[in-house]
Amino acid sequence: MKKHNFSAGPAILPAEVLTQAASAVTDLDGIGLSLLEISHRSPEFKAILEEATALPKELLHIPETHEVLYLPGGASSQFFMAAMNLLAEDGLGAYIDTGSWSAKAIKEAKAFGPVEVVASSKDKNYTYIPKGYQIPQDATYLHVTSNNTIFGTQFSAFPETNIPMVADMSSDIFSRPLDVSRFGIIYAGAQKNLGPAGTTLVIIHKDMLGKVKRAIPTMLNYQTHIDKGSAFNTPPVFPIYVCLLTLRWIAHHGGVSEIQKSNASKATKVYEAIDRNPLFRCPVPKEDRSQMNAVFVTQNSEHESLFLEKCKANNISGIKGHRSVGGFRASIYNAMPMESIDVLVEVMDDFANKHG
Amino acid sequence: MKKHNFSAGPAILPAEVLTQAASAVTDLDGIGLSLLEISHRSPEFKAILEEATALPKELLHIPETHEVLYLPGGASSQFFMAAMNLLAEDGLGAYIDTGSWSAKAIKEAKAFGPVEVVASSKDKNYTYIPKGYQIPQDATYLHVTSNNTIFGTQFSAFPETNIPMVADMSSDIFSRPLDVSRFGIIYAGAQKNLGPAGTTLVIIHKDMLGKVKRAIPTMLNYQTHIDKGSAFNTPPVFPIYVCLLTLRWIAHHGGVSEIQKSNASKATKVYEAIDRNPLFRCPVPKEDRSQMNAVFVTQNSEHESLFLEKCKANNISGIKGHRSVGGFRASIYNAMPMESIDVLVEVMDDFANKHG
Repeated sequence: MKKHNFSAGPAILPAEVLTQAASAVTDLDGIGLSLLEISHRSPEFKAILEEATALPKELLHIPETHEVLYLPGGASSQFFMAAMNLLAEDGLGAYIDTGSWSAKAIKEAKAFGPVEVVASSKDKNYTYIPKGYQIPQDATYLHVTSNNTIFGTQFSAFPETNIPMVADMSSDIFSRPLDVSRFGIIYAGAQKNLGPAGTTLVIIHKDMLGKVKRAIPTMLNYQTHIDKGSAFNTPPVFPIYVCLLTLRWIAHHGGVSEIQKSNASKATKVYEAIDRNPLFRCPVPKEDRSQMNAVFVTQNSEHESLFLEKCKANNISGIKGHRSVGGFRASIYNAMPMESIDVLVEVMDDFANKHG
Repeated sequence: MKKHNFSAGPAILPAEVLTQAASAVTDLDGIGLSLLEISHRSPEFKAILEEATALPKELLHIPETHEVLYLPGGASSQFFMAAMNLLAEDGLGAYIDTGSWSAKAIKEAKAFGPVEVVASSKDKNYTYIPKGYQIPQDATYLHVTSNNTIFGTQFSAFPETNIPMVADMSSDIFSRPLDVSRFGIIYAGAQKNLGPAGTTLVIIHKDMLGKVKRAIPTMLNYQTHIDKGSAFNTPPVFPIYVCLLTLRWIAHHGGVSEIQKSNASKATKVYEAIDRNPLFRCPVPKEDRSQMNAVFVTQNSEHESLFLEKCKANNISGIKGHRSVGGFRASIYNAMPMESIDVLVEVMDDFANKHG
């Protein structure tokens, strides 16, 4: 029996994507070869990479100024690559610190040039999105983490600024429409809303590049991958293919506007269940709550293990909160079906009735 | 009908590995979740990573001094990472230049410290392995490319030296026994002898590290990945799992000594077919011929397209040579079954009879 998978990442993928991916591992579209054993220069993979690059442009209305890349190494590699490629030694990188991932991005950037943390929510264990800060007008970029998986917060709107933003969107890419023109770089590890672990989507404004003087290893230079269409070396063929399947699924389901509506309905159901049950509490104020990761704790610490057991008994998986927050985290990415949301909400209500 | 897959990489994998991999994409070992959607911190993936790290140690008798890692970014990332981590600004990296991949490794290393090319076979388009050179005794390491996929050459024995070697073994890892103690680093992109594209096996002598003073981004520091057991960030779950399946397959088939014997029989058959047919010629002298990639050209250029057509008609795929060499390349990695070798040899003999 299939579990209800609330894992924070690697995370649930659409059921049809998994079926198609498994089939390609056996035989890709009837060519007599597995997807895993074809050359990355073959016409079959070239077509895959081309469509996987074209679909994000279509779905997010990405302007001609920007390129779409698939890179290795996860968002953790983008933390330093963004700074290595964009931040001059006499430049300035402005950062908003909204959680562990922002903090890591800040740490890695400091090795390359001056960094200013313009706002932070660390004072309250990252339970909110900072407001009312000044962004230095001479900054090369403003770095934001659009959704904070661990703490369950999300920028409902991006900061008003004319500085290009660099955004880690690992956990909410393709969950809502975006004005891509406002971003210098958008990067997203695939394993939450897009595909399996092993590739990172990067959307980059070409004009951001070529402005730092340091030597950059070929593989770490965005320009290399723009020039070679994400195939300078052998790209991670299977992870990219599964991203393509998910992108097709998003397109087939009406694109990111429709996905956003469905995400909002799912999140509303979960947060309503938290708010109406006095046994549970969401530490995040309503306006900053993530549509992707609903974090909640039990008011009574004894209830924590009891609720976890009840979840397990109801085939609910991956719901335990991150160790730095505790409690629970329902990760409800694009691919999460309403049926699983309904099961979770029923389990929560039932638990509250029994123990309330 | 399944093709005879002579692709240079991504390359053939054992049929049972593909079947098991496809099954895990649907449901991993009956846990009710796809391998693609489980957390990299789950007990299931922890067990996978642990076994995928332990099996190379067993198969190659890796000493306690060395660690086994799975890293992103392919061998192309190891070209600069090895130098960034090992080569001090006042150190010396010695390199043997045996082809395009060596040349790229040399280029990337030069950004970090002094590099000396101690031998090169570039003068004859890399058709041989250099002999009779001096290795500077003050070098930090000697870099070699053990097998040259494009040119069909291979070190049948590694250089006699007391300098630790850094070796790119992307195309012949696990094809033969090794004395790992002689190597500072062994790295291998998975997509030839080990798994699908998307992960790189690194075997590293721990004592090589911590001797350069430069700042190294966290993700590029081998020590990070040693400390975190290849799970500092989300590793490429699926590619690593398929590597594990292949490693199990190697162990099940008697380990690398048995694989070496089988590889030798396969290579002998192919080279004998080339040598006995006056229509074909192998540009590599016998002692330097690769057991993994048999390169051959037609004596008469008109025969080239005819032979390629004949291969296609016989369901032989991926046999076209690299553009920098031309002709043909039969990549006959560990997973290549003798049946496919026999089909190729029959096609070659038949072609020679018809057109000879």
